[in-house]
Amino acid sequence: MKLYDTQQAPNPRRARMFMAEKGIDLDSIEMVQLDLAAGDNLGDDYRRRNPMGTVPTLELDDGLCLGDSMAISRYFEELHPEPPLLGRDARDRAVVEMWNRRMELNLLFPVAMAFRNITGHFKDRERCSAEFGEISFERATAMFDFMDRHLAQHSHVAGEAFTVADITAVCAVDFARVIKLRIGDERPHLARWHAAVSERPSARA
Amino acid sequence: MKLYDTQQAPNPRRARMFMAEKGIDLDSIEMVQLDLAAGDNLGDDYRRRNPMGTVPTLELDDGLCLGDSMAISRYFEELHPEPPLLGRDARDRAVVEMWNRRMELNLLFPVAMAFRNITGHFKDRERCSAEFGEISFERATAMFDFMDRHLAQHSHVAGEAFTVADITAVCAVDFARVIKLRIGDERPHLARWHAAVSERPSARA
Repeated sequence: MKLYDTQQAPNPRRARMFMAEKGIDLDSIEMVQLDLAAGDNLGDDYRRRNPMGTVPTLELDDGLCLGDSMAISRYFEELHPEPPLLGRDARDRAVVEMWNRRMELNLLFPVAMAFRNITGHFKDRERCSAEFGEISFERATAMFDFMDRHLAQHSHVAGEAFTVADITAVCAVDFARVIKLRIGDERPHLARWHAAVSERPSARA
Repeated sequence: MKLYDTQQAPNPRRARMFMAEKGIDLDSIEMVQLDLAAGDNLGDDYRRRNPMGTVPTLELDDGLCLGDSMAISRYFEELHPEPPLLGRDARDRAVVEMWNRRMELNLLFPVAMAFRNITGHFKDRERCSAEFGEISFERATAMFDFMDRHLAQHSHVAGEAFTVADITAVCAVDFARVIKLRIGDERPHLARWHAAVSERPSARA
């Protein structure tokens, strides 16, 4: 098994953190570090494994390539159901799916869109819109506020258990440093949750 | 059970199509049509059910609200495993997850972003960037081309079986009419797949 990884990027961290929570020893997996700035993810060799050119990609021993953090997470959830990170039953799985997607679509994406469009980090390979970067920054900020209100009433993102939604959210909140968006003193409930999740050993995976 | 729905929007169609494929009689479910242009989804009443203000939302009889097309889909997959639309085993579920997310993140989103930013359809409630709308249109067009090449080698999006990835993709391709992006004669494999999926009774759900 081989994981194509980029240490600083949020999506590979989601996969590593999920695997660590499942008790998988990351030292037992061959890690291939890709330098996105250098375009390691854009060459034919990597594109054959993942035509989208995104990281991470998990390559299984038989050659199957899972080129998506949630696809990798679901694979390990199926192989190692305990502890459940995607929900325990039909209702719970639907609720976790909903909250994980909210954390991705309404938080991680605006953060990533702000990063890419404001900083122009990948402007050698994609058109950027500083205006949309600003719009995305505003949306990410509003979502930080929403999460503070939400976490005033729940210990975790999807309710009272730690799930993949917390993984997605903490990776997004931490990555927001690149756009200088921070939790601050004015969001105490988000800060309490963030401190608790960050203490888990998987947060350093 | 009550489904908050908007006929013209792609995400509610994903949920309806999934439910129809599962053999659920949509006439047996109370449908509440929301007029997004009139802001039906922005009032306190709906926000209590879905704080993101998105459609669709499925309200269960005990009051639990699933405010996301994929959360709704996963709920029905768990209740009615046959026919499997999210994959049969660990590998297959991971592959379907990957392709469904590619169809959403790389196809439906660019189409939706192009629609919202170019047309300013919701400019009474969100800042728009015409420049990002153009960028999104280019990305959606490139993804149409990618899908034509991909579907030259596979009968369906995630391989040889019909899955949720085909539902997401057909809803995105059909919705692309609003930005005047069409399959055309130059993408015969995408056209063949589109005709086959469109013939399924669920496509009219």
